[in-house]
Amino acid sequence: MKVTLEGKKKHFRTVSFEPESNRLILIDQRLLPHTFSLLETTDYRQSALAIQNMTTRGAGAIGATAAYGLAQGCRAFSSKSLTRFATHVQKVFQTLASARPTAVDPFNAMAQVLNAMEPGGTVAEKQELALRAAIQFAEEDVAHCRAIGKWGAELIEEGMTILTHCNAGWLAFVDIGSATAPLYEAQAQGKPFHVLCDETRPRSQGAILTAWELAQQGVPHHIIPDNAAGHYMQRGKIQMVITGADRVLARTGAAANKIGTFTKAVLAKYHRIPFYIAIPLSTIDWETADGFDIPIEERSEEEVLCAWGRPVNDETEKSGGDEKPVQVRVANPSSRALNPGFDVTPAELITGFITPVGILKPDELRSKLGKGAS
Amino acid sequence: MKVTLEGKKKHFRTVSFEPESNRLILIDQRLLPHTFSLLETTDYRQSALAIQNMTTRGAGAIGATAAYGLAQGCRAFSSKSLTRFATHVQKVFQTLASARPTAVDPFNAMAQVLNAMEPGGTVAEKQELALRAAIQFAEEDVAHCRAIGKWGAELIEEGMTILTHCNAGWLAFVDIGSATAPLYEAQAQGKPFHVLCDETRPRSQGAILTAWELAQQGVPHHIIPDNAAGHYMQRGKIQMVITGADRVLARTGAAANKIGTFTKAVLAKYHRIPFYIAIPLSTIDWETADGFDIPIEERSEEEVLCAWGRPVNDETEKSGGDEKPVQVRVANPSSRALNPGFDVTPAELITGFITPVGILKPDELRSKLGKGAS
Repeated sequence: MKVTLEGKKKHFRTVSFEPESNRLILIDQRLLPHTFSLLETTDYRQSALAIQNMTTRGAGAIGATAAYGLAQGCRAFSSKSLTRFATHVQKVFQTLASARPTAVDPFNAMAQVLNAMEPGGTVAEKQELALRAAIQFAEEDVAHCRAIGKWGAELIEEGMTILTHCNAGWLAFVDIGSATAPLYEAQAQGKPFHVLCDETRPRSQGAILTAWELAQQGVPHHIIPDNAAGHYMQRGKIQMVITGADRVLARTGAAANKIGTFTKAVLAKYHRIPFYIAIPLSTIDWETADGFDIPIEERSEEEVLCAWGRPVNDETEKSGGDEKPVQVRVANPSSRALNPGFDVTPAELITGFITPVGILKPDELRSKLGKGAS
Repeated sequence: MKVTLEGKKKHFRTVSFEPESNRLILIDQRLLPHTFSLLETTDYRQSALAIQNMTTRGAGAIGATAAYGLAQGCRAFSSKSLTRFATHVQKVFQTLASARPTAVDPFNAMAQVLNAMEPGGTVAEKQELALRAAIQFAEEDVAHCRAIGKWGAELIEEGMTILTHCNAGWLAFVDIGSATAPLYEAQAQGKPFHVLCDETRPRSQGAILTAWELAQQGVPHHIIPDNAAGHYMQRGKIQMVITGADRVLARTGAAANKIGTFTKAVLAKYHRIPFYIAIPLSTIDWETADGFDIPIEERSEEEVLCAWGRPVNDETEKSGGDEKPVQVRVANPSSRALNPGFDVTPAELITGFITPVGILKPDELRSKLGKGAS
């Protein structure tokens, strides 16, 4: 998407690939929001490292990085032996799959690439098929987000203020994003609206990533403390909530997403404000029946007890240095913290899901999408 | 209250006074939670500065500081001329009143001291009456908090987990606190219970002050992100909420308190969890009819966009230095923020008020306390 760099507005994808140089290009999300920097990898091991060390993050983004990384690794193979090629592909796959072992997206994305390579009769053919499949994966990710945007933009009326939580923007996908897609589409349609971004402690993805994205796109917005959304709803200042989700249960319509999503859904219900969740279909879990069966990752205490940022009045700020943020201990040193990474919002609090195939009520996921019926 | 200092547990009040040396002793809250330090003032102008620069904060604490500061100033007068004494008292009063011009507590506390001085026939008599009145103000603040504790402790059952928001602890009063008083009393009664402290962004008073207090008192607790309370309620992990308040409307039972209090009240209602507000009677506003008429202070954006803490791995941490926290910019540099300091919780969400005279339902404030009936 648009990033202002040295005074120019350019279009950058979160994840892109240059076939000529076999080079993967990633926005380095570890340095945001203070520094915009692209990281280029020329070797699949560097691409795996970029997933592992959080250079790139978000379901669609790490899926595409893994798909491109697999193609990149396949294309670096220089012999014509199919047997040795198969061993090599296995090694590339394992390296990329183990970069973020709990995530399903890199695994699923690479499975698509491997399947596409099957028909190839020579190493060169397989290499070509791998590249095409990786490109196709990335383009489909963009197309799905674009379709989410088209459907979601219909919900946005002129003058609305929309609340977002965490980051399900283009930084989490190849481009466009899920929860942000309706915003960018409504902006393209010329509708005036305003966004309130929940800070989203403990990692502050709203204040750091969503706000940065919206600023790059020129979408009018303010960051608010997570504590303030209820107040603005009470005062009639919020007309709609749109978040992303990490997992949506087709059987019940419940959604797991970043901690705090459930709270915003309860507040929206209390104030009769529509609460939407924007997702690609790959986010749907067709099996799990009970939202309470979704494992809730307990993350590091340090995230709650500390904050990360650039020292104010520091020289590096003026010089535009690309140092990583400084960690400061905010909380009482002798206290401990709890840090659940996600929560589960029940269907009764969700107005609808904005998907690439339309807006569906929670009980329509199974009936309209026609999968997983038991 | 108990503070562990050089291995010893000592009892410190937030605000105390040594008549022999005419010395006011304050816990320096600017250095918490990383450093415990007492600040002593020997002159009323230093006491006024301590209010102004946030060495001391919280309704009861700044009230007592102003009352003691006025007595301190009166007692420093060395002539016997009543006329010149009156001019001097006026100057002392003005200096202390202008230290935090929007707060009513220093003003009301000093009015009590001035009234008490009236009957004195000599400078020496007036000086003695001022001291006694200041001591009485502080002791009443403690007695009110203790009574809140007695009533509130009856609500606490063995094994409960109680949620707190912001800091209405002994750091905000002379001792004991309002919202924390039931906790300390229940602890004294030997009841086992657990506390979850909302971090309370943007200023993190829960993570910094409440957690520090509870740690000093040995109350089992964890800090949680403001986003996590709803999740823990949903999982049945919270049995009661107790917060303080900045203003309670007798006519409707609505309560203004730190931003985020309303959100916790909505969550408690959704989960049918009791939601209590602990207050001294001085917090009651007998006049205002509509909660929406309470002015909501819009505070500095910087509080939302930044965080304050001690650099992790910094040498000063190991050496126990008393440097003030470092400010870091967390949020996207080109984004702005909104920062409402308070919100208003309507009576329908409040189970009861824990007051020094008992636990009252919102509609009982006027009828049972017998004031302000129109």
